[in-house]
Amino acid sequence: MTDLPPADFRERITRSFGRQRAMGLIGAQLTRVEHGTVEIELPFDEKLTQQHGFLHAGVISAALDSACGYAAYTVIDADASILTIEFKVNLMSPGRGDWFLFRGEVTKPGSNIIVADGRAYSITDGPAKLIASMTGTMMVVRGRQDVAG
Amino acid sequence: MTDLPPADFRERITRSFGRQRAMGLIGAQLTRVEHGTVEIELPFDEKLTQQHGFLHAGVISAALDSACGYAAYTVIDADASILTIEFKVNLMSPGRGDWFLFRGEVTKPGSNIIVADGRAYSITDGPAKLIASMTGTMMVVRGRQDVAG
Amino acid sequence: MTDLPPADFRERITRSFGRQRAMGLIGAQLTRVEHGTVEIELPFDEKLTQQHGFLHAGVISAALDSACGYAAYTVIDADASILTIEFKVNLMSPGRGDWFLFRGEVTKPGSNIIVADGRAYSITDGPAKLIASMTGTMMVVRGRQDVAG
Amino acid sequence: MTDLPPADFRERITRSFGRQRAMGLIGAQLTRVEHGTVEIELPFDEKLTQQHGFLHAGVISAALDSACGYAAYTVIDADASILTIEFKVNLMSPGRGDWFLFRGEVTKPGSNIIVADGRAYSITDGPAKLIASMTGTMMVVRGRQDVAG
Repeated sequence: MTDLPPADFRERITRSFGRQRAMGLIGAQLTRVEHGTVEIELPFDEKLTQQHGFLHAGVISAALDSACGYAAYTVIDADASILTIEFKVNLMSPGRGDWFLFRGEVTKPGSNIIVADGRAYSITDGPAKLIASMTGTMMVVRGRQDVAG
Repeated sequence: MTDLPPADFRERITRSFGRQRAMGLIGAQLTRVEHGTVEIELPFDEKLTQQHGFLHAGVISAALDSACGYAAYTVIDADASILTIEFKVNLMSPGRGDWFLFRGEVTKPGSNIIVADGRAYSITDGPAKLIASMTGTMMVVRGRQDVAG
Repeated sequence: MTDLPPADFRERITRSFGRQRAMGLIGAQLTRVEHGTVEIELPFDEKLTQQHGFLHAGVISAALDSACGYAAYTVIDADASILTIEFKVNLMSPGRGDWFLFRGEVTKPGSNIIVADGRAYSITDGPAKLIASMTGTMMVVRGRQDVAG
Repeated sequence: MTDLPPADFRERITRSFGRQRAMGLIGAQLTRVEHGTVEIELPFDEKLTQQHGFLHAGVISAALDSACGYAAYTVIDADASILTIEFKVNLMSPGRGDWFLFRGEVTKPGSNIIVADGRAYSITDGPAKLIASMTGTMMVVRGRQDVAG
């Protein structure tokens, strides 16, 4: 992990997130960017559901992947970029609730490979409920025009 | 695996897929339902992209999860349902192409747990290109009103 | 999670661990059993290595799987048993060190499915180093003679 | 994937496997090395069991990881080496049988990252039974003294 993140990391990540059209499509917002941690929030919307009316596992995965990926962005140099190589998601409780919080955190920084862990929570009244977890493996990419930023 | 799938499995799966609002949102269509195998297709759409303009990993996961989940539906009794417990996705090539094919296949049927494997391909001109794979673990659910069908 | 673990859970787990011949083969010892958490320790031994002289990923997986599995045992009824359905391991640093600590913790208890997370550390001089993580999905089994205890 | 594997790939892989002390410990043998495919076999031994007398999931993982890793070795240059970044194992049936076959196959070759899939079978009388599957992500390593060969 860089000892100090590049000065403008919040701006770069906010700009990059803004280019993730899929995040706009599902109504996800970037709500927290710290060194090693990123949070995304999403209000429940019926258009995001699977056949039983719960949030679709793919939507949960999309938001967790973005949270984990941008957590990795907070620990790399300003001229590098991140590609997700693979991730695993455990779905622990149905995606029911008024809104959802997705937190990605860097577990193992690295110059080539970064491991990040994510947790998804549903929130209605009362305490947040853990509904899913992710472990993702990210590759640090440099000098590729097609995956810059 | 049931030796013969229930007579109306295609109808039930088509109905259930139609209730997956998230599949409608991303423009995915159910194009093949066989005993043990389901295919979903998706035209490329800029609204489904991540920051580099490729199909978002979450969209790939959503379609693969639906393909694997419905593959599991083809091998269970008509009164049971399927919940995804967990899955792993490997992203092998950028999600670039005119359209995408997602195939889910049952690797290990079972009365409680079903394992399914999925593959995602991008198609433009020439041969399909493997862009991602999934292994998913599905639970067979019976007698729960909230997850019927 | 059971609010209170069955009174004799440490004894049952210690007995069951003692029957895991593979743990004896690699020299692993059960060093901590708490409600929701189990630790296993292992001294480095050259007979456990892969081709570069590091601890083999399979040995790391074996110890993490046992730690996660027995963590799940601490939250089930005395007459139930645990089977691992699947797990994912991320190998973050080479398995180098004098000895190794494997901690398994229950992330999501449940009456049918339990999710546990594990971490592996190498220890020489100085602070422990995170070398691997696991997320495992465990099934609670009841009334099966072949998987009792 | 290299169009043709380096001429001496079988010799290099056999030598490297011979240095995997953990494979010797569990009694595993390298029985097939083809371009993109490697097989390992293992007779059942009570010292490899978990608490119910089945082959320990860690032993299955160790053999699958070696099979997948050496499958990756068959598609890289002679001066490169392979490190496993992560893998996922699904355990589908208890590890019961007289002996076991583990097959690793390259699903996606690459200059930096290789994805391999493995299958484990138990064999007694009659047809082989699928007991486990693996998907592993391997990194191609060059110019590191500590991970050569």
